[in-house]
Amino acid sequence: MDEFELIDRLAGRLKEMGGSPISGVVGIGDDCAAIPHEGGLMLLTCDIAVEGRHWLSGRTPLEDVGWRVATANASDIAACGGSPAYALVSLGVPQGWDPVLLDSLYQGLAEGASQYGFQIIGGNVSTAQELIVDLFMVGTANRFVSRSGARPGDVVMVSGPLGDAAAGLEVLKELDPMKPMESLPPYGAALANGWLRPKARCDMAAALAKHATAAIDISDGLSSELNHLAKAGEIHLAVESARLPLSPALKAFAQHKQTSPLDWALHGGDGYQLLFTCPPDQQTLFAPLGAIPIGQVKSGTGVSLDGRELPPGGWNHLE
Amino acid sequence: MDEFELIDRLAGRLKEMGGSPISGVVGIGDDCAAIPHEGGLMLLTCDIAVEGRHWLSGRTPLEDVGWRVATANASDIAACGGSPAYALVSLGVPQGWDPVLLDSLYQGLAEGASQYGFQIIGGNVSTAQELIVDLFMVGTANRFVSRSGARPGDVVMVSGPLGDAAAGLEVLKELDPMKPMESLPPYGAALANGWLRPKARCDMAAALAKHATAAIDISDGLSSELNHLAKAGEIHLAVESARLPLSPALKAFAQHKQTSPLDWALHGGDGYQLLFTCPPDQQTLFAPLGAIPIGQVKSGTGVSLDGRELPPGGWNHLE
Repeated sequence: MDEFELIDRLAGRLKEMGGSPISGVVGIGDDCAAIPHEGGLMLLTCDIAVEGRHWLSGRTPLEDVGWRVATANASDIAACGGSPAYALVSLGVPQGWDPVLLDSLYQGLAEGASQYGFQIIGGNVSTAQELIVDLFMVGTANRFVSRSGARPGDVVMVSGPLGDAAAGLEVLKELDPMKPMESLPPYGAALANGWLRPKARCDMAAALAKHATAAIDISDGLSSELNHLAKAGEIHLAVESARLPLSPALKAFAQHKQTSPLDWALHGGDGYQLLFTCPPDQQTLFAPLGAIPIGQVKSGTGVSLDGRELPPGGWNHLE
Repeated sequence: MDEFELIDRLAGRLKEMGGSPISGVVGIGDDCAAIPHEGGLMLLTCDIAVEGRHWLSGRTPLEDVGWRVATANASDIAACGGSPAYALVSLGVPQGWDPVLLDSLYQGLAEGASQYGFQIIGGNVSTAQELIVDLFMVGTANRFVSRSGARPGDVVMVSGPLGDAAAGLEVLKELDPMKPMESLPPYGAALANGWLRPKARCDMAAALAKHATAAIDISDGLSSELNHLAKAGEIHLAVESARLPLSPALKAFAQHKQTSPLDWALHGGDGYQLLFTCPPDQQTLFAPLGAIPIGQVKSGTGVSLDGRELPPGGWNHLE
């Protein structure tokens, strides 16, 4: 049973036990939940990061761990068309840990708070076997951009280059632990930075709220998120591989590896670009933000790449 | 460095880095954070529970784990004078776990949701070395009852019998794992139930919001919470041991152990009664809910029991 099956199972159990849904409330199954707030919406999300699972234990600087957790949450808020506002942080800390290391973690969280415009207003601490950082983020939005609104005729868009973070993690894993980051070639350093310091696309949230019909963040890889979007919207997504935006660094890395960059671009997670759909006449409104069209929404089900079925192949936190 | 020192340190770091506080927002240092919402307040809190730390690994039924996490969060909301409304749940799950066990956990959470009137609207899942349940709860309130409002002349109150849960945990630890709960004497079963199924005092929240000057929930033990309240309010709390409410079950257990029940009542955690202060002429308003006076608020600092200093001696999650 993978992460998504587990979430489906738990959502089903809660639905059985929880009675009728509340009017105006968006529940389990999207990047955020939403409740009515001050004439608009309040978005709620949480993302847990576990040592050795979401970062390289002893090798990933804790500043970057803090940044990445802030980014993962801010990205969920942005994908729903909202702006981060507040956060609570839950920590599980191994006994005997040096508090100075936690200062580093908090430094990264504070940098994320400053970048994305939220304030950390609470939290709690327990001991645990490994370091655990669970951030709960609250955002605000005027309109909820869900996963399910794509319509046949819409354009499929991504907000920027794909696969850099996943390739960067590979670079970091291959880097001799005794050597500094500076020993990496320029493309390696750029990709590593793409994993250590991904950016949530909060700059796109307002445009999404105005013009997007559906959106999701690419935390688990494009192929995985395309399938989520197709399933939620009960539509078919036809994507062209030649259109996928690739960074010069990813191309250089792929050339060095004598392989295609497409595997990272299609299946690599952790990059936090956004995948969304909009009517064709509105796609140019996203161009100044770096977003480009990669395909079409059609009637039907599932996802195709260059006319062939594209199953989900992305990152699954329980694999 | 204990849990409270760690939270102070982290709060200090965030203050250094986070800029000026936002008007109308209550931040780190109380049972909940609060933000303006629909003409009133939204309360935000989170409580993390870790296998082997917050429950007896392999011996505490997961239904009860779910209930206890729901209770811990609902109690934070009640202590601030609010009502639970929504929750998100973050899970860390060991690889290869049987999903049926998670159904049990969710059964307990759903029972808590039904009891306390909140709805679980989101969450996320990761693998971890031990089972971890982190609940984020959102509540609503008309007025924020903080830890810091007690004034000299106020009465110190508790919402009900103290120490049952802590004694119940002792009973459960001493119970032969091969024997059923039914083999316990009646007082043992009552105490064990006090630990497995504590009740958040959400029934008191409305009265607290109207009449209390300060409040805190007794999750870490009375002596610990009295000291938090004294420190936050910059006042002295003078408590009389003869007034501490003790259940017949706790008295019977203490008699069996040939010891005083006071140690559990003063220092035992996990019971989730509320400790609060109110003007003397309003104490009778709480009587129908089972709350009774245990002492006086005076000018000064610290806590005294029968005239002698009472240092914090309660449960600390990092010890």
